[in-house]
Amino acid sequence: MPPSFFLLTDFGLQDPYVGQMKAVLRSRVPQAQFLDLSHGVRPHNVLQAAFFLASSWPYLPPESIGLAVVDPGVGTERSILLGREGGKSVLAPDNGLFGLLLQSRPECLLWRMRAPTPVREISSTFHGRDVFAPLACELAQGIDPGKMGIEISFTECFQLPLTQPKREGNRVQTVVIHVDHFGNCVLNLPAAEWSQSIFAASHLYLHHPRQETVYPESTYARLEKNQLGILIGSQGYLELACNQDSCARKLGLDIGDECIFGL
Amino acid sequence: MPPSFFLLTDFGLQDPYVGQMKAVLRSRVPQAQFLDLSHGVRPHNVLQAAFFLASSWPYLPPESIGLAVVDPGVGTERSILLGREGGKSVLAPDNGLFGLLLQSRPECLLWRMRAPTPVREISSTFHGRDVFAPLACELAQGIDPGKMGIEISFTECFQLPLTQPKREGNRVQTVVIHVDHFGNCVLNLPAAEWSQSIFAASHLYLHHPRQETVYPESTYARLEKNQLGILIGSQGYLELACNQDSCARKLGLDIGDECIFGL
Amino acid sequence: MPPSFFLLTDFGLQDPYVGQMKAVLRSRVPQAQFLDLSHGVRPHNVLQAAFFLASSWPYLPPESIGLAVVDPGVGTERSILLGREGGKSVLAPDNGLFGLLLQSRPECLLWRMRAPTPVREISSTFHGRDVFAPLACELAQGIDPGKMGIEISFTECFQLPLTQPKREGNRVQTVVIHVDHFGNCVLNLPAAEWSQSIFAASHLYLHHPRQETVYPESTYARLEKNQLGILIGSQGYLELACNQDSCARKLGLDIGDECIFGL
Repeated sequence: MPPSFFLLTDFGLQDPYVGQMKAVLRSRVPQAQFLDLSHGVRPHNVLQAAFFLASSWPYLPPESIGLAVVDPGVGTERSILLGREGGKSVLAPDNGLFGLLLQSRPECLLWRMRAPTPVREISSTFHGRDVFAPLACELAQGIDPGKMGIEISFTECFQLPLTQPKREGNRVQTVVIHVDHFGNCVLNLPAAEWSQSIFAASHLYLHHPRQETVYPESTYARLEKNQLGILIGSQGYLELACNQDSCARKLGLDIGDECIFGL
Repeated sequence: MPPSFFLLTDFGLQDPYVGQMKAVLRSRVPQAQFLDLSHGVRPHNVLQAAFFLASSWPYLPPESIGLAVVDPGVGTERSILLGREGGKSVLAPDNGLFGLLLQSRPECLLWRMRAPTPVREISSTFHGRDVFAPLACELAQGIDPGKMGIEISFTECFQLPLTQPKREGNRVQTVVIHVDHFGNCVLNLPAAEWSQSIFAASHLYLHHPRQETVYPESTYARLEKNQLGILIGSQGYLELACNQDSCARKLGLDIGDECIFGL
Repeated sequence: MPPSFFLLTDFGLQDPYVGQMKAVLRSRVPQAQFLDLSHGVRPHNVLQAAFFLASSWPYLPPESIGLAVVDPGVGTERSILLGREGGKSVLAPDNGLFGLLLQSRPECLLWRMRAPTPVREISSTFHGRDVFAPLACELAQGIDPGKMGIEISFTECFQLPLTQPKREGNRVQTVVIHVDHFGNCVLNLPAAEWSQSIFAASHLYLHHPRQETVYPESTYARLEKNQLGILIGSQGYLELACNQDSCARKLGLDIGDECIFGL
């Protein structure tokens, strides 16, 4: 089976940055296969990247090796962590990017990497190409993580200030953690925990950002035109949605914004 | 030859959706190679997707297997079709996405798929990952389409309300079916049928959306600055174009808009 | 080692153009692996493409074969060149796209290609798919460049009117050659030549587009909020940057704009 690398960055696809990372990977591991999770994380948005990583984890190929580079602290003293669970590995800066994955996979092992010996001068602004890619190649060559760094526990890594939902009586205060391409607004409400109380009623009330009735539905196409729905999204979280319209634009919502419901 | 999957969606590249589809494909078919036709179809725009599929078909590698997921009806009763022609296969919802391909390749065989046995719970909003990808893997494993569904005829599938050009005397009423990255406006005029009458004259007149003289030319660079040209586009249809400028912006045209010519 | 093709275009990723190029490559070279350098070059911006090619060159896998298609003159008499250096090859129109690569790798060999025998009719607007891809496949099959064209010297190819920095006493007049996804503004100041004089001072003055103090720093995160920095970018050129903010937006800068410094 050829080595499979997956990539998650906020680099976008305009610049040759992703291409240069892959060029380094393929130069050292000629059989390398790539899987782009996303390069469209909002610049420096660690929470969104943490969401993408955790929600994609169950689907990633066994033995695949990830490079998750959303790294506003690049070039400073922040270290690089390796996570490994179920035969899959991922490298990420110690900035909270592992936060949601560790919540859903507490059995994930963690190592704090030592920086590798660079073949050429390390750029202080592009560690994705100059540090992460060489580290990933060492993993692909089967080097033991214990030789690349030291094992640490969950409590030793940076804790992402995660905006958890807050419940006071009938009021639930949530945060939009992702707005997708279709304008669906993913909330910080894991479906496993929240779907029962949300789907108990025929409808519920949105108080903020504005007064609206929200209808629990199983799929977009079952919503009436102009109806606002709440669904169990494909990523394992509840999401606000419209049928063939952008819910984000309709409600003026963006990542980080609050939504308050009355149950 | 490693199995080659091609993908055509309206998912965009911001979200991890395309990555998750590929992750499922590679998890089950480790040697899988991917070919991204486009993930930039306008959300829910089946006509544009049908155009991309038909115009790319002649170039696709033999034995390749496609997943064409522009699927506003996801989660409803619409079924999934398999088309097969010239050794190539493609899965798409029964919503008209096959329309233009079937026009140019009437020998294409069609099957209506039964839903596969899912390994994990099927999301009702993301059939690309949870239904299309597993079906494509079965095809890659050589399973006979007849075991996955029943063969149907062209007339049994959903007919896309295609906006065909209308001709009344010297007036031709056309529709923009695609605006490309450079601002070229592709019209619903197949070159094979229309180039002779269009290229007979040294110029023709655009009546709508505004009065303009249009010059038939063989390539963009032969147009004068500020001239409006009509060319045989690389996709097999006639297109309106400017030299190093966006024709769409200049004329205020978008997909679905009408253009009326006097020949 | 499977044949590895790298691609650099201004096609964007909305249209099926890149997919059709890859489809032709894979149809003829089934084991083909792809590496996308960027498809986000500004439409027709040869200088930006020349910068992407030169800055990525050191990282490209040995034996890889590139298709650099930023080609405003497509369909006219401009010829196609092949460059080869260090075991890597790249095809590009003779429009200056090789300019910066030839500056940094003067040992690069050049050939002027004859057009290949087409299998199907050559589109006059899409040579990436119909001419470049077949040529690249011939190279992958090991055909000798001398059989595909004639060797030429650097002076025989089109010279890109490169905006070189101009120095008059303490004033340096530079040009922005790239604005990246994060808003960093790459200047036409190669780090090897300019970093010593720029990094000698604790700060310098920007005179144009507006009066600002600029601080030389080693990495983005070391800049204070609202400080304007100058860094040795990861692409080998000096760049203007802010910490977690878009420098381009802040200064109103875009590709091609002038920046004047007092040293």
